[in-house]
Amino acid sequence: MSLMLQEITEQPEILERTINAEREKVTKLGDFLRKKDIDLIVLVARGSSDNAALFGRYLLEITTGIPVSLSAPSVFTLYNAKLKLNRALVIGVSQSGEGADINRVLETAKSAGAYTLGITNEAASSMVTIADETLLIHAGREKSVAATKTYTGQMMHFYMLAAALGDHRLDYHKIPEFAELALRLKPEIERLVERYAFMENCVVVGRGMNYGNSYELALKLMETCYVVAERFSSADFFHGPLAIVERRFPVILFAPSGVTRQSNIDLLNRLHELHADSLSITNDDKIAALSSRSIAMPMEIDEFLSPIPFIIPAQLFAAYLSKAKGLDPDAPRSLAKITKTL
Amino acid sequence: MSLMLQEITEQPEILERTINAEREKVTKLGDFLRKKDIDLIVLVARGSSDNAALFGRYLLEITTGIPVSLSAPSVFTLYNAKLKLNRALVIGVSQSGEGADINRVLETAKSAGAYTLGITNEAASSMVTIADETLLIHAGREKSVAATKTYTGQMMHFYMLAAALGDHRLDYHKIPEFAELALRLKPEIERLVERYAFMENCVVVGRGMNYGNSYELALKLMETCYVVAERFSSADFFHGPLAIVERRFPVILFAPSGVTRQSNIDLLNRLHELHADSLSITNDDKIAALSSRSIAMPMEIDEFLSPIPFIIPAQLFAAYLSKAKGLDPDAPRSLAKITKTL
Repeated sequence: MSLMLQEITEQPEILERTINAEREKVTKLGDFLRKKDIDLIVLVARGSSDNAALFGRYLLEITTGIPVSLSAPSVFTLYNAKLKLNRALVIGVSQSGEGADINRVLETAKSAGAYTLGITNEAASSMVTIADETLLIHAGREKSVAATKTYTGQMMHFYMLAAALGDHRLDYHKIPEFAELALRLKPEIERLVERYAFMENCVVVGRGMNYGNSYELALKLMETCYVVAERFSSADFFHGPLAIVERRFPVILFAPSGVTRQSNIDLLNRLHELHADSLSITNDDKIAALSSRSIAMPMEIDEFLSPIPFIIPAQLFAAYLSKAKGLDPDAPRSLAKITKTL
Repeated sequence: MSLMLQEITEQPEILERTINAEREKVTKLGDFLRKKDIDLIVLVARGSSDNAALFGRYLLEITTGIPVSLSAPSVFTLYNAKLKLNRALVIGVSQSGEGADINRVLETAKSAGAYTLGITNEAASSMVTIADETLLIHAGREKSVAATKTYTGQMMHFYMLAAALGDHRLDYHKIPEFAELALRLKPEIERLVERYAFMENCVVVGRGMNYGNSYELALKLMETCYVVAERFSSADFFHGPLAIVERRFPVILFAPSGVTRQSNIDLLNRLHELHADSLSITNDDKIAALSSRSIAMPMEIDEFLSPIPFIIPAQLFAAYLSKAKGLDPDAPRSLAKITKTL
C-alpha cells in the first residue's frame, strides 16, 4: 500500500485526535479574539495548505461575518508592502511550519500589529516560534509527498476556529464519523478509476464550501497522475472556460446537496448537451442521475460539514488512478516534500 | 480582420481617452475616500474582469497599504452572509455592468455600510444605478466575445485609483505609448503562432503585477483556441503542479524585468532541466536567452507599468493562434457575451 493511501486511511482517527487535543485551546482563543474587535482575517498558505485556506475563507466569512482575504505572499516578500493590519487576525497554514514565505508574512504582519496564528503539523517548527499562537494538527509525520491527512487536519482547525469566533452552529464533532463512512468507498473507487486510466486532462468543479476541494483534487491529479487538471467554480466555468469542453471531455464535480445544488444541476445539464463526461461526488439522487458516473456518498449531511468527507473519495481517486496509470503516488516526478519559495 | 483583433488594436487610443475623461473624477474620489478612513478594499468580478481585479489587488495593496480581498460572490448570493463592511470600499468590475451576481454583492455591501464603486464600459447599465460612484471605460461597445479592450481599460482604472488613494508614483500616462509599441509586434506574433498550431494544453505563469495577466492569457487560450490552459504564479507552480511538465510541455511566462525576475529565472532553469518548452514575454535579455522562444518587448519599463503592454502580445497570440488552428476567435463554441450566474 502506498504511503498516500495509508495516510488517507488514517484521517478519521487524526481528526478525532485533533478535536480532542485542541478544542479547549481554540475555544479560549475564540474568547480572546472576540474581545479584540478583529475586523479582517488574512489567510496565507501555499499548495494544499492554500486549498485548505480557500475552504477556510468561505467557512470563516460566512459563519463569522468578518471579511477574509487570501494573502498574496509576494506582496510582502517581493514588493515589501507595509499593510495596515492592526485590527487583523493573520493565519499562516503550513504542513511543515517551514514555508519561508508564509513565515515571513507572519513576521511582517506581527510587526504591523496583527494577531498571528499558525496552523501546522509540526510542533517543533519555525512557525511555532513566530506566531502568537499555534494550532497543531495531530497527524503524525506526513511522509507522502501528496498531502492528504494534513489537508483535512487544517480544515478541521478552520471548523473549530469558526465555531469559537462566530455564532453559527457547526457540529464538526460528527465529521470523523462521516470520514469513516467515506473510506468505505475504497473498493468501489479502485474499480472506478480503471475507466480513467488514459485521462490526460480534466476540469474539477466545486463551489462555496467545496471550492477549495476542487483545487485540492486538481492538485492531487497533477501531482500524482500528471493529469492537466483545471479547477473552477461552476459560476466561473460558465465565463469562458466552458469553451474547452468537447465531446467526452471529463469534468469532475463536488456536488453535495445544499445551496450549490442548483448551479451543479445547471452545469450538468449543459455538460450533457455538450456530450461531456461528468463524474459527480454527491449524496443527491438527481445529481447522480444527471452525471455520466457518480460516487454516491453514503450519508445525509449538512453542506457545511461536507468538505472533509467529500474530499476523501477524491483523494482515493487520485491515489488509485496513479496506480492504474502505472505511476507511484509516493514518488511524483520533479517534486520534493518541502518547497521553498519566496 | 476578426473583431477580437480589431479591438486589440484600438487599445492605446481607448486608454488615452479613458485617462483624459476620468482622471479628474478619480482624483476627487481619491480625496473623498482618503478622508473616510477605508481599511479594506473588496473587489468583485467574474471572468476577464476578475483577472483585471486580480491585477488591481496587487497594485492597490502594494501602493496604498490597504488590505484587499477578492470577493467570493457566492458568500453573498448563495450563503446570504452579512459581512462587516462599514469601513470597506467595495469595487464591482463588469464590462457590461449587468453581471447579476456582481450587482447583488454591491447592493448587499452598500446596505452593510460600505462605499461602493463600479467600473464598467456601459454608462446605461444597472451597475451605474446601484453603485455610489462609477468609473467608465471609454472603449465603445465591446463586440468580441473575448474581452480585450475592456480588460486593459479596467486595469487603467486601477492605476488611476491607486495613484489617487496612495502615495506611490505611478506614471500611468505613459502606458498608452507603451501599448502602441507592443502592437508593433503583430507581424512577429502572427509568424510565431504557427509553431503552436497543435498545442493542446499549456501552463501560463505570471507573478505579482503580472499574475492577473497569466489568468487572462489562459482564459483567452481556453475561449478562443480551446487549449486547456493552466495558470499559476511561479511560486505556486513549484508546489505540486510542476509534476505535469514533461518533455516539450509548453509553459508561457510573463517575465518583465523587476522583482519577479529571479523567480522567473529559477523557473526557466528548472524547465530547461525538464526539457520543457518555454515561451517568455519579456524585456530582459537573460530571460530571453533562457527561454525556448521569446517575445521581445521593445521597451525599458517600470515593472509596475508592465501589465498592460505585456498583455497585448498575449492577446495577439491568442487571436492569431485561434486563426492558425482554423477557428474563429469571434465565435467561441458554447459561449455568449454576457454570462448570467448567481
